[in-house]
Amino acid sequence: MKFSIQKDRFAQSVQDVLKAISSRTTIPILTGIKIDATEEGIKLTGSDSDISIESFIPKEEEDQVIADIKQVGSIVLNARFFNEIVKKLPLEKIEIEVITSFQTVIRSGQAEFNLNGLDPEEYPHLPQIEEGEVFKLPTDLLKAMVRQTVFAVSTSETRPILTGVNWKVEDGELICIATDSHRLALRKAAVETDANAEYNVVIPGKSLNELSKILDDTQEPVEIVITDNQVLFRAKHLLFYSRLLEGNYPDTSRLIPADSKTKLELNTKEFLQAIDRASLLAREGRNNVVKLSMIGEEMIEVSSNSPEIGKVTEQVKSQSVEGEELKISFSAKYMMDALKALEGTEINIQFTGAMRPFVIRPQHDDSTLQLILPVRTY
Amino acid sequence: MKFSIQKDRFAQSVQDVLKAISSRTTIPILTGIKIDATEEGIKLTGSDSDISIESFIPKEEEDQVIADIKQVGSIVLNARFFNEIVKKLPLEKIEIEVITSFQTVIRSGQAEFNLNGLDPEEYPHLPQIEEGEVFKLPTDLLKAMVRQTVFAVSTSETRPILTGVNWKVEDGELICIATDSHRLALRKAAVETDANAEYNVVIPGKSLNELSKILDDTQEPVEIVITDNQVLFRAKHLLFYSRLLEGNYPDTSRLIPADSKTKLELNTKEFLQAIDRASLLAREGRNNVVKLSMIGEEMIEVSSNSPEIGKVTEQVKSQSVEGEELKISFSAKYMMDALKALEGTEINIQFTGAMRPFVIRPQHDDSTLQLILPVRTY
Repeated sequence: MKFSIQKDRFAQSVQDVLKAISSRTTIPILTGIKIDATEEGIKLTGSDSDISIESFIPKEEEDQVIADIKQVGSIVLNARFFNEIVKKLPLEKIEIEVITSFQTVIRSGQAEFNLNGLDPEEYPHLPQIEEGEVFKLPTDLLKAMVRQTVFAVSTSETRPILTGVNWKVEDGELICIATDSHRLALRKAAVETDANAEYNVVIPGKSLNELSKILDDTQEPVEIVITDNQVLFRAKHLLFYSRLLEGNYPDTSRLIPADSKTKLELNTKEFLQAIDRASLLAREGRNNVVKLSMIGEEMIEVSSNSPEIGKVTEQVKSQSVEGEELKISFSAKYMMDALKALEGTEINIQFTGAMRPFVIRPQHDDSTLQLILPVRTY
Repeated sequence: MKFSIQKDRFAQSVQDVLKAISSRTTIPILTGIKIDATEEGIKLTGSDSDISIESFIPKEEEDQVIADIKQVGSIVLNARFFNEIVKKLPLEKIEIEVITSFQTVIRSGQAEFNLNGLDPEEYPHLPQIEEGEVFKLPTDLLKAMVRQTVFAVSTSETRPILTGVNWKVEDGELICIATDSHRLALRKAAVETDANAEYNVVIPGKSLNELSKILDDTQEPVEIVITDNQVLFRAKHLLFYSRLLEGNYPDTSRLIPADSKTKLELNTKEFLQAIDRASLLAREGRNNVVKLSMIGEEMIEVSSNSPEIGKVTEQVKSQSVEGEELKISFSAKYMMDALKALEGTEINIQFTGAMRPFVIRPQHDDSTLQLILPVRTY
């Protein structure tokens, strides 16, 4: 294998596939990055066996030469060192050559690195995904749907299925749901599907987080292929594979109350900042709990009390307060996560009682909601 | 105590004195920030008993009202919470009032915090420093002198005196020296002193680091007062006290070789980047050691070898190579620290043998030097 390539473009691809590589793997070859030089270009692969990422650099693009492949071939190099080295090479052009028994030379200007590589034949094969049914989402919408749900997955392994986000496709609509059983985030959107494809799978939250990081903010479509135990996201020059979580995702539809006894309309930013301030003292207490009460037709009060440190109260103007008066306590962190996930300057909150889950939605937008379970404080 | 004040100015002063406050102190009142409202303005104090910082906010400055003092008085408030609260208050104007038995109310807009304060009478008194002899340095020069030496102090407590920087004033010159016994950094500059003042003290490295962080990059003079066991840095509206380290600083003058058997001239940035690349692999080996050898009249080679991972070699052009040929090994980290500390685009390195300390100086600048002890590798 021997080729020269543009450093910046190559370094970006290395960064991308690095996101799949864990230094704590028990399979030594997976600490490496696989490099394949073909007649068409350079392919980089990284994997931790849960997530696999493949980035392709064509040898030419828009009449520009990016890579000059002198000899096709493959090698596996220690990912951490290789990434550091590529970033710090002195010139814009770098040359990589496998000389003998996986010894690999990396040259740029006067700098020459000689790395001990690994046998590419021993690198595991990526999951084979049949070119079957595909659905498409614009990249920026995909990233928004991930951002608005993935934070709500469980971080505890006691119910592993809850560490993933439930993706359901039916009737041309994708619904993403995450819950850690204390709160729930839901986002839906229309998707382009082949025929009447239906899916109901659970994608690990970690995979979606990594996927989000390597996708650019464009409106280019991402193709999504779902199989029994894998999902593949296919963007330009990039393949992102993740295993799916096994098991059935709980039916969350019953959790979301249909009616409402109290309804508030609030400015998202003002309310978020008031919760943030109240949580300064709440953080010390257990559970980071703040209290919300209605104090009139157009005013609510956010408060928190931490006996050793002090207390805080703040009045926040509400565009409207409808229904029964209410005092309710909840986690400030969950509320802030939910408010940050919602787009839009105005939100409404619908309560059905001090001990029942409540629902936060952007005004005039039914595509997303956040649900939070209150905390009993008395 | 009752006053209102501009939030941004107040928050900056809180940030400054916070640098002296440790959450791990064994003296509970020192986790607090002391606030004194006087007829002249607001004084904030923080201390960990090694470092004490006092920041003063005048009630008026340049015909602008900054603080409105309604009632003089004092209070001590938990520094960490107070800092978070002040930063997050909603409006540009904030009001602080002690109501009863150290209960303190902080108001801004609709937000009201009620903090449990501590008795200001129990706050320790700052060291009393007689208005005696003073010497002056422009702030930016003081910061440069700290930056160019403090990184070389020892981080080990086996010889506590080496955790400080030796400050010597004699013949109108300030000399700052730091060493951890593997390398040494020296910087000197002329200072304005009263009469023929002479000092020889050791200032804790941590104190100088904190001082550097809170001083602005101006040419305004900082007044420095040195007593038996304290040093006071006095800038505009800011007093910074540090205790001195007890004991005698070793005489380092014998360490610096007067002669030279090999002399190199190098471009600082090119050499630094080559060392940085070589250290990528060296980091894995013990000691982070790189090797330097002469390979001709105008070329040196930097290399490093880590049997498990690979090796790296790089040739660097030297403006001149004079004297005996030499192969020498040293810590890449120490070399990078030294090169980053030196100002100037060209440096020279003077060696007196492969096992003797060598000296790095900027070209045409005798005010500073860096000394490094080589590492034996064979």
